[in-house]
Amino acid sequence: MRRTGRFSLIFDHAPRIETTGTIVGQAEAEGPLGQWFDIKSDDAFFMQNTWEQAEAVMQQTALRRALEKGSLDAGMLDMVFSGDLENQCIASSFGLKSFGVPFVGLYGACSTMAQALALGGLFVESGAAGRAAAVTSSHFSTAERQFRYPLEYGGQRPPTAQWTVTGAGAAVITADALCRNRNAPVIKGARFGVITELGIKDINNMGAAMAPAAAEAISGLLSDTGAKPGDFDLILTGDLGELGLVLVRRLLVDEGFPADGKIDDCGCMIYDNSKKKYGCGGSGCGCSASVWNSVIYAKLCGGELKNVLLAGTGALMSPISVFQGEVIPAIAHVVHLGRKSC
Amino acid sequence: MRRTGRFSLIFDHAPRIETTGTIVGQAEAEGPLGQWFDIKSDDAFFMQNTWEQAEAVMQQTALRRALEKGSLDAGMLDMVFSGDLENQCIASSFGLKSFGVPFVGLYGACSTMAQALALGGLFVESGAAGRAAAVTSSHFSTAERQFRYPLEYGGQRPPTAQWTVTGAGAAVITADALCRNRNAPVIKGARFGVITELGIKDINNMGAAMAPAAAEAISGLLSDTGAKPGDFDLILTGDLGELGLVLVRRLLVDEGFPADGKIDDCGCMIYDNSKKKYGCGGSGCGCSASVWNSVIYAKLCGGELKNVLLAGTGALMSPISVFQGEVIPAIAHVVHLGRKSC
Repeated sequence: MRRTGRFSLIFDHAPRIETTGTIVGQAEAEGPLGQWFDIKSDDAFFMQNTWEQAEAVMQQTALRRALEKGSLDAGMLDMVFSGDLENQCIASSFGLKSFGVPFVGLYGACSTMAQALALGGLFVESGAAGRAAAVTSSHFSTAERQFRYPLEYGGQRPPTAQWTVTGAGAAVITADALCRNRNAPVIKGARFGVITELGIKDINNMGAAMAPAAAEAISGLLSDTGAKPGDFDLILTGDLGELGLVLVRRLLVDEGFPADGKIDDCGCMIYDNSKKKYGCGGSGCGCSASVWNSVIYAKLCGGELKNVLLAGTGALMSPISVFQGEVIPAIAHVVHLGRKSC
Repeated sequence: MRRTGRFSLIFDHAPRIETTGTIVGQAEAEGPLGQWFDIKSDDAFFMQNTWEQAEAVMQQTALRRALEKGSLDAGMLDMVFSGDLENQCIASSFGLKSFGVPFVGLYGACSTMAQALALGGLFVESGAAGRAAAVTSSHFSTAERQFRYPLEYGGQRPPTAQWTVTGAGAAVITADALCRNRNAPVIKGARFGVITELGIKDINNMGAAMAPAAAEAISGLLSDTGAKPGDFDLILTGDLGELGLVLVRRLLVDEGFPADGKIDDCGCMIYDNSKKKYGCGGSGCGCSASVWNSVIYAKLCGGELKNVLLAGTGALMSPISVFQGEVIPAIAHVVHLGRKSC
């Protein structure tokens, strides 16, 4: 491992992403990426009694599916990194407690999958783990009642609001020498983000709150490494949504890294939003987790994508900080994925 | 860095803890460790308008004080690891957003200081960071209204309940070659814990919920490394409290690691509890953060302690999981501190 520039890390030993698993709800399954998800359920309770239990089962199922697809078992994992949006991250602790693997709980809001991939990559790169899992989730109904209103209230949403994805994703990061999937893409580097806020206080406009953090993270990694947007097949932000994506494009131009043809956002990809039912698009830890670990992973394995920047974005407020009139601090962590030979 | 046994890590490059800072409230200042804390306030609001703002300022102040004591500035930090008990960990994100340092948000409940020290140690050991900070906090009043009852309600507590510490602690972990404090103790190794639960559901008996996790973590590290309790000057758990300390002693005997004369608990040390005002003792992320980074750190620097195991313990439930009748999963992370020459 090498540090380059101010804050970026280059993983010379190229930890692999050996296998992934995803599970989503009905709206996500019916969206344009539906074919790529491993497990789809039209039961929002996932056969549980509460939405919170459902989200925990989604994390458990995503990791189990990843292990099955890789012909692995939990005893072959040395670490698991996990977090979610529920208070005290209970989807993670309840979902993963049965695996018997050392557990590092994270809170990065919707940036958690990027944070977990970066930490997992660093653990494997440094030899601290042979195999490490990264798992996150979100659930529309756990998020609505915690961050917004009871579903029964039927509250109206402004058009800048986003729709919390019901989804979970898991990735297993593996030392090259242990990795059984010889098509597995590698984590080439990572950059942990700096908390950024430009004064946005509107809880219904997360895209505006998070776009400056995404720009900080992407331009920071490009500056640190001397790369340009054109060096990548795709720069994929987590869940800025339609408005946030416009803003981050503009901010990157201002910072000297125009990325218009290269940048897209998971929140803009996951739903069929032709009728604007989903506001500005998807959000939640499960948004990037389900998109990256399905279609993006498959295209990296197949060679259709060779060099991808994932920029997970998170808004670090809580309902109580919003009630107290505070700004919305945001963060983005960047992970550079590629092919071994690149 | 080497892995030993199933899950333990040995840090051969001996990352140093270069400097620490602590800040506590009135009850903690009046306790038996009062003289060891850097900053003491009899204003529970720490000159802010809300308890949540107060807790954020405590984290900020603890890190600032650590930097001042080490003659460092924030630009010399490469990473900060932080978490707290508030929903969405807002004490951390609001407290540390002004430092401009890459931020990894954690959720480990009261184990967060151990988790942050272990991660910071690993980052410095592996070369991912030259200097990394670990910061956590808790505040009696933010915790009471979030986890229990409004203070004005004056709810009665059973004797097994614990008292959330109003305190914050920060530690700066530094590569040996960069470290200016030549008396600084080193992080010799760490072990991230496995989520453990033995069916405890009583929210007013966290000691019983967490003791099995502490035993898992301590016996796990001892098994992995071939060490015995007698090899250490002190094995210090985070905040099991009086009942939890009895239980972990018993569990360690059962697991073949009797540690009676060696083991103590920060929650039992921090208050003058002669009148049982504080139930079974202190708890919260700020409990181990303020005890370890004050008296324990000073005694390690001075050579009075030479070999210490810190076992941070956390209960990973939330109010909603408790309302839904779930068990209380717990975790403990262990950090091995010592002197460079040991």
